[in-house]
Amino acid sequence: MTQQLKHIVLFAFKDAATEENIQAIVDAFANLKHEIDEVHDFEWGLNVSPENLNQGFTHCFQLTFLSDADRDVYLPHPAHKAFGDLLHPHLEKVLVVDYWANDK
Amino acid sequence: MTQQLKHIVLFAFKDAATEENIQAIVDAFANLKHEIDEVHDFEWGLNVSPENLNQGFTHCFQLTFLSDADRDVYLPHPAHKAFGDLLHPHLEKVLVVDYWANDK
Repeated sequence: MTQQLKHIVLFAFKDAATEENIQAIVDAFANLKHEIDEVHDFEWGLNVSPENLNQGFTHCFQLTFLSDADRDVYLPHPAHKAFGDLLHPHLEKVLVVDYWANDK
Repeated sequence: MTQQLKHIVLFAFKDAATEENIQAIVDAFANLKHEIDEVHDFEWGLNVSPENLNQGFTHCFQLTFLSDADRDVYLPHPAHKAFGDLLHPHLEKVLVVDYWANDK
């Protein structure tokens, strides 16, 4: 299997962020895979863990890249920067980890 | 595609945890998929994000379940509890989110 670089992003939104604000952010994030060829895959979902270890994060996103060079195109890409401008007024906190997926 | 429940787990280890301690924990976590049939998939990796937004978390694990019933078998399973007993003396902090993967 081609090695995959997983890019996990978690958001918590400010109390003042409306459902419409948040939906626009999710839609814009999902659209980045159409704007940036180097995004190999994208998925997202709402936290539904019963363990209460989510540290306040509610929105989970996972992008997959096929190389760190592709990730390094994504990070400073103008479309990603524009997404950040949409996001930041409503963002309470963010967590990002990247890892090369090993199965053992 | 069958809907997948993603279970993302992040660890930060105590400074006193040795490489051997941490390797034993990673190996034990990876082995859970052999001990608990309901674990559909497992992968892990070290954080390599250049963004410095990992909030101190260094080890990233992703389990996949095919139903919340399967996740609910996993959480209280004796093999998972035994893993927790191995983990906790060395754990600085943990974050867990679960989400149903949507692609848009």
